[in-house]
Amino acid sequence: MIRRGEASSRGELVARTGLARSTVVQRLDLLAELGLVREDGTLPSTGGRPGARFRFAADAGVVLVADLGATHCRLAVTDLARGVLAHEERELAIDAGPGPVLTAVRTRFGALLRRAGLDSQAVVAIGLGVPGPVEFATGRPIKPPIMPGWDGVPIGPFFEDFGAPVLVDNDVNLLAIGEHAEAWPDRADLLFIKVGTGIGCGIVAGGRLHRGAQGAAGDIGHIRVAGATERCRCGNVGCLEAVAGGGAIASRLRSQGVAVEDARDVAAAVRAAEPTATAAVRDAGRSIGEVLAGTVNFFNPSVMVIGGDLALAGDDLLAGLREVVYRRSLALATRELTIVPSRLDDGLGIIGAAVLATEAVLAPERIDALAARHSALHDAADVPAIAEPAR
Amino acid sequence: MIRRGEASSRGELVARTGLARSTVVQRLDLLAELGLVREDGTLPSTGGRPGARFRFAADAGVVLVADLGATHCRLAVTDLARGVLAHEERELAIDAGPGPVLTAVRTRFGALLRRAGLDSQAVVAIGLGVPGPVEFATGRPIKPPIMPGWDGVPIGPFFEDFGAPVLVDNDVNLLAIGEHAEAWPDRADLLFIKVGTGIGCGIVAGGRLHRGAQGAAGDIGHIRVAGATERCRCGNVGCLEAVAGGGAIASRLRSQGVAVEDARDVAAAVRAAEPTATAAVRDAGRSIGEVLAGTVNFFNPSVMVIGGDLALAGDDLLAGLREVVYRRSLALATRELTIVPSRLDDGLGIIGAAVLATEAVLAPERIDALAARHSALHDAADVPAIAEPAR
Repeated sequence: MIRRGEASSRGELVARTGLARSTVVQRLDLLAELGLVREDGTLPSTGGRPGARFRFAADAGVVLVADLGATHCRLAVTDLARGVLAHEERELAIDAGPGPVLTAVRTRFGALLRRAGLDSQAVVAIGLGVPGPVEFATGRPIKPPIMPGWDGVPIGPFFEDFGAPVLVDNDVNLLAIGEHAEAWPDRADLLFIKVGTGIGCGIVAGGRLHRGAQGAAGDIGHIRVAGATERCRCGNVGCLEAVAGGGAIASRLRSQGVAVEDARDVAAAVRAAEPTATAAVRDAGRSIGEVLAGTVNFFNPSVMVIGGDLALAGDDLLAGLREVVYRRSLALATRELTIVPSRLDDGLGIIGAAVLATEAVLAPERIDALAARHSALHDAADVPAIAEPAR
Repeated sequence: MIRRGEASSRGELVARTGLARSTVVQRLDLLAELGLVREDGTLPSTGGRPGARFRFAADAGVVLVADLGATHCRLAVTDLARGVLAHEERELAIDAGPGPVLTAVRTRFGALLRRAGLDSQAVVAIGLGVPGPVEFATGRPIKPPIMPGWDGVPIGPFFEDFGAPVLVDNDVNLLAIGEHAEAWPDRADLLFIKVGTGIGCGIVAGGRLHRGAQGAAGDIGHIRVAGATERCRCGNVGCLEAVAGGGAIASRLRSQGVAVEDARDVAAAVRAAEPTATAAVRDAGRSIGEVLAGTVNFFNPSVMVIGGDLALAGDDLLAGLREVVYRRSLALATRELTIVPSRLDDGLGIIGAAVLATEAVLAPERIDALAARHSALHDAADVPAIAEPAR
């Protein structure tokens, strides 16, 4: 609550939590001992003696984060409030395989730490995003289509020198986490739709990321578009990605004589008002809208955020998409539905990774476990005699 | 943990929770004081003095539950472990409106309590299911299509004489909650698909019911089926319900000379091997499978349970459905996907309502709040002096 700015004094914490004052005092002592909270002056007096003001100590540790794409990566050191202390972007081909890629990331993490004037003692967690499905619990990519050599490889061990937990997730999930934390913290149900070469979706359900049974949730690129006959690389016909992905559009436009290489070029052509590209992107928006209309009926989100390279095309993509979603979804489910472009820039994946890593470190369960260990030590002397054998 | 059978002694609780023994002793005292846990003999000795065994006191209170359908309702009194103490089923037309329906339910609740030898003092919560969308936080139906006169009517106040919290939810959500609790407690992500006159879906995400922003989640009956041209009562064309709902199938079969009134008749005709009905249900399974293939890609569930009157048709519905889901969903997402008929009988809605009500009463937050109040009382004497004004 202190971190979120919901309370900053003992009195406010007592009032907001309903906990006994003695419990609040004890927990604040513990958080101070862990270095996570510190006293910072006093509150304006309301009559009696002024109360101490407490602040979250965002500098109690740092996290190392990396967002790995197909050909580029972004790396950063952030504090516990996702403030960036050092960062860099560089070319790094994911298809070089886990050994070369992760060794390079580890080396750059070390360099970034030095640049920030820190050593690895300060690192409390590491967060990484990769462009493919991940089994989150074990941090292994699972049959990632554009990551040859990565299937089933545990990523954590590459970073064990830092002695900190390593969290690995799909890049689109990190975009959803980042957008939710930065722009829509009060909306419980959010979808982040990334429209780039492929099409994927990150799902926040009840304020938490929904990864699904195999970590495969959000793979909307292979949902069928009614009436579509395009063959997809997955082997099926009419998949959304084969109809409306940036790669598919670029290839169709090339066959119509428009000089575009990829999704980014398509978006640029639309911004330059190239008519064939504009019509293609508007149609793509309608196809994406058709699939999203289904997810709106099924999931009833409160916000849908559209990002990715093709989203740089702007209003033409969103117009087609909104048109179909509002026509095809139930009135109740779209009553307060917000459909917006991503507010944040290319650094969003890094922010998402920082949120993932800091939330893991600062999770209430983890603090509770520390508190339990703490109180076990302190209670050792006065445990009452129990009619049970020691185990 | 005691309720779920994960621990039954102080020693086990200490080992499983990591809490200090003094904390465990204190919390057990509190739960005993609240009547929720009681000592019940001793554990087999492992050398020292035998330890006390604790059990959840399922009889610490009862819940009143009702599952209201279009023309029927089921009512029950259950204990806190969803054991049924008394129940009945009767005709009750939901379109008679909230006054007559809820007054009848209240009267029947009183009669059931008397039959169970209890009075209203024993009631700790009330759970109700209705056949339409519900704003869960306020317990109001929201534009329910087959419940004229119910739109926006708060249901809770009709039961205020019982002095217990009233929880109201959509009937399909209760089926999902009931099936999850009874048959698949270890699967975090479950879909319950009810195929009756209409088609709806209850969603369990990360072990919790997902209701969505307006409580409209799971309305898959109006997702478009590729290539379908049937006009739906919602005003759109090609909705799943207009193609594969029991009502739509019955009406098409009647026009082909098969004597069926509703979904239940259609299922009976299939069980009697009527060929036109069998072909129609198999086709319906394929259409439902097409929509579900999209939800599998999007949501990556671990179990999909098929229930409702049309599911009584048995294998023919499931065969068509599985065929399309496995063909159209991503391999990763169907790797360990289970698609099964509902294991439970017509009483499932009642079980779901009992789970909803008991979980609300026994929620850790609620116990924590009781504990906080309890410890505030006990601590009052030894609160340390704080440098803050009282508020």
